[in-house]
Amino acid sequence: MDLQVRKLYEALFALEELRELYRQALPTGFDDTEEQQRSTTLARLETLLRELQTGSGNPIQQVCAGIELRTREEEFININPIQAGGRLTLDARKALITYGDGYSVCDRCLEGRLDKIKKPPIEAFHADLAAFVGMDEVRLVPGARRGFQAVTSSLIERGDVVLVSDLAHYTEFLAVEIAGGVIKEVPTGTNHLVTGEAVAETIERTKEETGRLPKLIMIELVDYSYGNVHDVEGVGKVAKAYGIPFLCNGAYAVGMMPVNGKEIGADFLVGSGHKGMAAVAPSGIIATTADWAPIVFRSSRVMGDLTSRCFETKEPELMGCTLMGGTVVCLMASFPAVKERVQHWSDEVAKSNHFVREFMRIAGNLVLSEYPRKHTLTRVDTRASFDRIAKTDKRKGYFLTDELKERKIIGTFEGSTRVWKLNTYGLSWKRVKYLSEAFAEIATKYELPIR
Amino acid sequence: MDLQVRKLYEALFALEELRELYRQALPTGFDDTEEQQRSTTLARLETLLRELQTGSGNPIQQVCAGIELRTREEEFININPIQAGGRLTLDARKALITYGDGYSVCDRCLEGRLDKIKKPPIEAFHADLAAFVGMDEVRLVPGARRGFQAVTSSLIERGDVVLVSDLAHYTEFLAVEIAGGVIKEVPTGTNHLVTGEAVAETIERTKEETGRLPKLIMIELVDYSYGNVHDVEGVGKVAKAYGIPFLCNGAYAVGMMPVNGKEIGADFLVGSGHKGMAAVAPSGIIATTADWAPIVFRSSRVMGDLTSRCFETKEPELMGCTLMGGTVVCLMASFPAVKERVQHWSDEVAKSNHFVREFMRIAGNLVLSEYPRKHTLTRVDTRASFDRIAKTDKRKGYFLTDELKERKIIGTFEGSTRVWKLNTYGLSWKRVKYLSEAFAEIATKYELPIR
Repeated sequence: MDLQVRKLYEALFALEELRELYRQALPTGFDDTEEQQRSTTLARLETLLRELQTGSGNPIQQVCAGIELRTREEEFININPIQAGGRLTLDARKALITYGDGYSVCDRCLEGRLDKIKKPPIEAFHADLAAFVGMDEVRLVPGARRGFQAVTSSLIERGDVVLVSDLAHYTEFLAVEIAGGVIKEVPTGTNHLVTGEAVAETIERTKEETGRLPKLIMIELVDYSYGNVHDVEGVGKVAKAYGIPFLCNGAYAVGMMPVNGKEIGADFLVGSGHKGMAAVAPSGIIATTADWAPIVFRSSRVMGDLTSRCFETKEPELMGCTLMGGTVVCLMASFPAVKERVQHWSDEVAKSNHFVREFMRIAGNLVLSEYPRKHTLTRVDTRASFDRIAKTDKRKGYFLTDELKERKIIGTFEGSTRVWKLNTYGLSWKRVKYLSEAFAEIATKYELPIR
Repeated sequence: MDLQVRKLYEALFALEELRELYRQALPTGFDDTEEQQRSTTLARLETLLRELQTGSGNPIQQVCAGIELRTREEEFININPIQAGGRLTLDARKALITYGDGYSVCDRCLEGRLDKIKKPPIEAFHADLAAFVGMDEVRLVPGARRGFQAVTSSLIERGDVVLVSDLAHYTEFLAVEIAGGVIKEVPTGTNHLVTGEAVAETIERTKEETGRLPKLIMIELVDYSYGNVHDVEGVGKVAKAYGIPFLCNGAYAVGMMPVNGKEIGADFLVGSGHKGMAAVAPSGIIATTADWAPIVFRSSRVMGDLTSRCFETKEPELMGCTLMGGTVVCLMASFPAVKERVQHWSDEVAKSNHFVREFMRIAGNLVLSEYPRKHTLTRVDTRASFDRIAKTDKRKGYFLTDELKERKIIGTFEGSTRVWKLNTYGLSWKRVKYLSEAFAEIATKYELPIR
């Protein structure tokens, strides 16, 4: 398979070389030299196709000088915890090939606004996206983090308190910091679950300690440490009761599982393109309600003192246009598949539980995430199993990495045999079963009992 | 040519379909159904190659449902003013195919820092990039605008004055607005050129009007309206004399022409990936000196009150990691070509002047940019030539768009025959001559005298 995959890349690259000829030639046609180069490349493509067919020839190693080929998704089963939802769909890859050039979607920009472009249908995509996440308005941002920043920058003054959970992602911390805010953490307790009750208690504690209510509540639907699904509806109710705006961090959720911002009771819903919507990084979305849109998506008002120039069509919290090329086009091309896949979330959860159940049959293996699993990102503890082997193996924890790699499984933190994470999202049943069996095989090989 | 280009895309897409098979299959090999699909796709590729060879078959129109094919760079000469420097290089396109998936460069992230990743060599790239722009430290950002924002957010308090030119890009305005700053504009006068002298006068005016010095000077090396090359070295000297930090906006310059931040006397140099460094949007760089790096690239200090979590390795002005996939990999893959191409800037300017000279031979045509040209982005005035035709032609200004498109030239603002912009950057001499002749041909056809 490896050789085939590398030949496949080589053929893609040869086609790009052919494409480059068209980009350099006169649009009226090739001259003799170009015609010659075209013939040579076409002949090479024929050879490559044959090699691809028969599995012969030498495998390439690099994309270009200094950049090695990446074949993790083609040659391996990749269980990396953060990469699963950002894997490009087939249509996204096609769109990226087509729209890779810098400002590629701006060919027919008439209003100087990314979200008003009609060809490609970016304007319509914004409307569809808002409906998809159950909110009134949506904008694209270079990563979920820039969505958090837009909200904190709009709402938080120096010294204001923002509530986050004790499982909050670092980007939530930075978004508070950049706005001059202060963090109060909502404890999730021993089961690592955010509840509306704990949020209410932290609001009360904040009131006692500072004499004021928090200015913003920022809670993740799914956290990055345990992949637990938190009671954001409960948080939404508490937020509403106290009249505090609520930003729901939907990374690891939007684009993977059904998420409806208004049903959650969120004032802001943020999603990540490269974490959950099968798009190129950095990409993401911020969605909000008709009430908050005029605040976070307000128009620019600053004015030049000499020219009186004022860019009223631009939205300062977004810094104007955001994803003007391959990033937006991937979000759009993946969107039909994304809409479809969230409908099959229960199957993803079933596969996650199948894996975890099998994994826990290996004596000593523990799952630190909530169980039964409600998500595909899982934190496991193998200190009483694989780490015991690592203690005496000369490769230390790398024995597990090696054994997995030998079985074409990749994406664990290399060398780690203590507490680590994996993600089964998007793997077929066939692959999930293979994955489960691979761990059992390794356990057997190292004489770990299987229950 | 058109059919060939579309067949080329179709072949690329078919290879992606084949690639998808490997992504779904077990890593141990294909089953019968998959093997069958593989054969079918390979057979289709053979047909496509034949069609590509002979120029037969039906041309495809779409990438996928709703997204049309983009063939502007292959079927046309594209003179769009903002797209020229962001066109991907061949190596960038190969790298993008390989590294399109979301978090693709994070496979071997050990420190949780994009700029410390060694494979692919992102850390080394940062060092090379800093040397390339003549500064001490550099970080990647999702567009030049996010570089401006990092600086204003670090330096500007509410009510502080920031100097920009009366040609400043809107993103400079937004960066000031978001930090709560006030804009004072430096007049560029009738020749649309920023001088150190005008900056000094505006500083004095600010001092008189507000009693304080500006907190930041933000001036573009090349402006987006005229493509004029401004005296940023002169600005650097004035900035230094007054002790005011100077951000040089290097969009349309970094990656296209030689730019050295320290020689300019800039404290911050910002560049755009999709405008000047042949990369996917949104991408860009912010470079600074050893003096300013600890301020703008300072570590996070905000802390969780319950967990005492503090993400000290993260840089809040960047919101942590920035370009974690296809964006950074394009910057890297294009970098050798970018380093090379800035060495040939004088040739780019020569081609620009050749075009402009020929263009001005058409009676009535004017160039509003400085002349002789020092850049490839040019603002022209055709009110006394093409616009006269437009007044009586039933297609109005679209007659020019049509005539150009017929000659396979694209990228002007459609329907515009008054004041408009174009960019010859990256076009070969052959293409530049063809372009010049095309305009002359159109003039002749419509009986506009040629001098």
